[in-house]
Amino acid sequence: MYRTHTLGQLNEKNIGEKVTLSGWVHRRRDHGGLIFIDLRDRYGMTQIVSDPTHNAETHATTESMRSEFVIKAEGTVRMRPDGMENIKLVTGKIEVLIDTVEILNPAKTPPFEIEHPEEKEREVNEEIRLTYRYLDLRRERMKNNIVMRHKTIKCMRDFFDNKQFLEIETPILVKGTPEGSREYIVPSRLYPAHFYVLPQSPQQMKQLLMVAGMDRYFQIARCFRDEDQRGDRQPEFTQLDIEMSFVTEKDIMDLNEELMIKLVETLVPHKKILKKPFPRITWKEAMDRFGSDKPDMRFNMEICDVTEIVKSCSFQVFQNAIKSGGVVKALKVEGGASFSRKEIDELTELAKVYEAKGLAYITVEKEGPSGAIVKYFEKKELDELLSTTEAKNGDIIFFGADRYEIACTALGYVRLACGDKMKLRNKDTYAFCWINEFPLFEYSKETKQLTASHHPFTSPLPDDRSMLKNSPEKVRAIAYDLAMNGSEVAGGSIRIHNSALQSEIFDTLKISKQDAERRFGHLLRAFQFGAPPHGGIAWGIDRLIMLFQDEKNIREVIAFPKDQKAKDLMLGAPSELPDDQIAEMHIKIAQPQKEIL
Amino acid sequence: MYRTHTLGQLNEKNIGEKVTLSGWVHRRRDHGGLIFIDLRDRYGMTQIVSDPTHNAETHATTESMRSEFVIKAEGTVRMRPDGMENIKLVTGKIEVLIDTVEILNPAKTPPFEIEHPEEKEREVNEEIRLTYRYLDLRRERMKNNIVMRHKTIKCMRDFFDNKQFLEIETPILVKGTPEGSREYIVPSRLYPAHFYVLPQSPQQMKQLLMVAGMDRYFQIARCFRDEDQRGDRQPEFTQLDIEMSFVTEKDIMDLNEELMIKLVETLVPHKKILKKPFPRITWKEAMDRFGSDKPDMRFNMEICDVTEIVKSCSFQVFQNAIKSGGVVKALKVEGGASFSRKEIDELTELAKVYEAKGLAYITVEKEGPSGAIVKYFEKKELDELLSTTEAKNGDIIFFGADRYEIACTALGYVRLACGDKMKLRNKDTYAFCWINEFPLFEYSKETKQLTASHHPFTSPLPDDRSMLKNSPEKVRAIAYDLAMNGSEVAGGSIRIHNSALQSEIFDTLKISKQDAERRFGHLLRAFQFGAPPHGGIAWGIDRLIMLFQDEKNIREVIAFPKDQKAKDLMLGAPSELPDDQIAEMHIKIAQPQKEIL
Repeated sequence: MYRTHTLGQLNEKNIGEKVTLSGWVHRRRDHGGLIFIDLRDRYGMTQIVSDPTHNAETHATTESMRSEFVIKAEGTVRMRPDGMENIKLVTGKIEVLIDTVEILNPAKTPPFEIEHPEEKEREVNEEIRLTYRYLDLRRERMKNNIVMRHKTIKCMRDFFDNKQFLEIETPILVKGTPEGSREYIVPSRLYPAHFYVLPQSPQQMKQLLMVAGMDRYFQIARCFRDEDQRGDRQPEFTQLDIEMSFVTEKDIMDLNEELMIKLVETLVPHKKILKKPFPRITWKEAMDRFGSDKPDMRFNMEICDVTEIVKSCSFQVFQNAIKSGGVVKALKVEGGASFSRKEIDELTELAKVYEAKGLAYITVEKEGPSGAIVKYFEKKELDELLSTTEAKNGDIIFFGADRYEIACTALGYVRLACGDKMKLRNKDTYAFCWINEFPLFEYSKETKQLTASHHPFTSPLPDDRSMLKNSPEKVRAIAYDLAMNGSEVAGGSIRIHNSALQSEIFDTLKISKQDAERRFGHLLRAFQFGAPPHGGIAWGIDRLIMLFQDEKNIREVIAFPKDQKAKDLMLGAPSELPDDQIAEMHIKIAQPQKEIL
Repeated sequence: MYRTHTLGQLNEKNIGEKVTLSGWVHRRRDHGGLIFIDLRDRYGMTQIVSDPTHNAETHATTESMRSEFVIKAEGTVRMRPDGMENIKLVTGKIEVLIDTVEILNPAKTPPFEIEHPEEKEREVNEEIRLTYRYLDLRRERMKNNIVMRHKTIKCMRDFFDNKQFLEIETPILVKGTPEGSREYIVPSRLYPAHFYVLPQSPQQMKQLLMVAGMDRYFQIARCFRDEDQRGDRQPEFTQLDIEMSFVTEKDIMDLNEELMIKLVETLVPHKKILKKPFPRITWKEAMDRFGSDKPDMRFNMEICDVTEIVKSCSFQVFQNAIKSGGVVKALKVEGGASFSRKEIDELTELAKVYEAKGLAYITVEKEGPSGAIVKYFEKKELDELLSTTEAKNGDIIFFGADRYEIACTALGYVRLACGDKMKLRNKDTYAFCWINEFPLFEYSKETKQLTASHHPFTSPLPDDRSMLKNSPEKVRAIAYDLAMNGSEVAGGSIRIHNSALQSEIFDTLKISKQDAERRFGHLLRAFQFGAPPHGGIAWGIDRLIMLFQDEKNIREVIAFPKDQKAKDLMLGAPSELPDDQIAEMHIKIAQPQKEIL
């Protein structure tokens, strides 16, 4: 038997008990003949003491122990001497005087230290952490991330089970979609020249489950996307996937809002939800007010439209934007008149990242509006600008003049940066917000063609159906996202269940009957046999847990993530394979081995 | 709004209420002007009635409805007329007289009928069922299988969560093992000539989690095996995967036994567990008594060793077997003297499938032992055979004479067949049994070399370690299986955590240091940093649910299975892919397209 108690269990009530403990040597301290060991496991830390006068042989073994050795010790629980208690630990009032000890496994010196839970974590190069992930996971912070992940997902499952949802496993080996350039492919051994692919999401499967009458489906689903690893993406990621029959957008939003509130209140009760029920605004309103389709609503600092006010001004930049059908937007930042030249330059660079040509601004000084562009405006225009933006002495007004989306988006990011500067983005406050009425279509920059913003099964708003033919870009979708402090944490839509409407959408997207059959044949066929009205939503679980844990990237909340170049540094994957294993799949390597990253 | 109630909810208490219902038209019956519709959803069935005198327009719509149409109806709940109740349905005392009705979606005639829950299911060709899986899943039996799957897995998760286990997701894109000929491979786009593979199980990952100090891990894990699809296998399957630190074999058996009892008592309470606690026997005892490493213990009919009794008989078959170091085993079947020639021939063929050369037998008649081989025995030998096997008038004794494992196994299968004949294998009785002390190694028929029976990290019994060098085939493992009515439902082992012992095992398996590094490097490296003693087990979830549901193959309990040739008939996977998608992965197709199955 390895242990009678875990290392987070013993306290004053156990004084005098004989116990057996096992765990990792965290620290060994030699003090005047006595040796103290902080013994660690997942559950906590217990101090054991070896006294040479009590058992000399045990003491000799104890002397040979180093950090991260795995040991087993037997002894008796006693009070720590006065003044030696550690009130931060559950086990901090007791210690175990050991009779015998056994080294279950020695350990080499780890490449980085496993800090004491109470110590500040040291910075370690991420490559080393990922290579030795099994050591990295021993660190308090990482362990807590994994525990939180377990608890979050358990809470989700209990919630849905309680509401009569069925968790249904959908396949990982599925059929490729012809335009599926982000798909991982899996050659078939049994069918030469044939391939499975790994799903980017269970989208079609969950719709088929609705046709099958399953009514309420959810799944914690692994998804795969072979993207260039910009930013915070992983080749495999986890999604909370939901689909329901006979529901409206409101039903889905209400249910998911209930879940989110439950998760926050249960798992991160120290976080304060700013507003319940969550605000629900349209995509247009979100863009207008916050310059974002996932606004951070922890702070106000809203964007105003000033196109009307400045339409006659002599500032060429504004004039040009307006003449080309664009808009002029303004963002007032309270107290921003104190921004340094350098700060304003940085904000300008940020705006340019989002395609703005620059970032004009006016500061409000005691003497009135000031700055390089003031001279282009009449006094009346300046007065109106100040009153519309409610700018006062000490404030700054930034302008975005461009196509609607660029003007909004660039100012939206400037807004976030100013929110940071002004410390308005408190990590312990959660501001949730539903965004709906997204555009159904968007123009693909590459193909210059209309594509579905979400997927071609997303239902248009009934009111907008008449615009499908002539103004498709104006058609809004019954689609909704849940934003949390400026991150999108979930998104979904009501699907089309009517085949006439589906055909109209395909026509708008210039998808021929033949193409539709080739790409979505199994789904369209299924829809002919009695498809119920249905809709759903999917949550990015990795990101949610990252936010719960105040982490900066999703790798921190995944036990064994790939690095930013899609490599598993611990396993050494991907790797070369023996020729015969590759040949068995009826494929050959097409070019000499060379890293292209 | 689509519904105020699901179709399994309304009863006498709702009489007089205005309700809105949605669902599928199950049956429409026209009776003297009135139309009755059984409206179906996942939750049940509710009868709605259209009366032309109540609403003529609604009635006209109702007349156009056919099976599997999706409709929405509004109306008022009322009692069914006397004598028209259906006591088998929760909703069987009421019906809903409808005011308005809307066809939400029409349906083509399905390729097979969706039976009424109370009707006997019709046999449908499996290919058609799998092609139209979304219709197949509407059938009561299939729906119940999916519901049971959800409940079973939920129950497992609650159990482990309650015992401080963490569910941890391990990656699906992992590193290939050089001998991994059953692995699906995934070419990397970013690293030409490099591949990920899909895991056959999270074995190494869960051991790494123990090194990481996670202490108690479980996962409902998707696993992949690219096998020739003999029998009841799927390319992807689901495993309940468990690993624990600081535990013994007994700890793991106790815990999993507790879970199994909980599952049965909660989910299939009509099934009777024959013996609690579950019997625990060694592999040797299981082979000796039942001729199987996964004995069906619902019935006795045990095998006896009669080598000593017949060692001097003049029957050449027995003599040859004994002289080559083999054994003679006997299986008495009560009442088996009445087996027809044809039945005995069938049993003989069965024995031959398991490599027996034939199936000698003696029947016991009123006059005494009888049959072709009786003449080769002395009376004393016959008497001893009868007394050892406790054979009485009317019984039959079958013999297996061969190498130990063949003699046992062949009789083991004959035993199962006789159990079926004698109706001793009642599907509503569950006989569980733990088997342990499996051989650590086995000889591979292909390579004529010693291989690990389970995997090379399985710990030997401490007592047997001394035989590693000279009699490795005699070394037993700390490995254990859970058998259920003759099926293996779970299997696991205690792992080696000591590097000296691990080296000894690699030596025995003739795995060089270099090979070990190449194949298991990341694991062996991890073990140097303080690996705790650990062990685990994995359950085959598909099979378990199949047994719970009295199904004959695991495809019946998987929502979207592949067929027996690894095809997804509904999706049409695997499929061809566009050339550029293949080229992007730096691979080429190696031979012209041709089905090899």
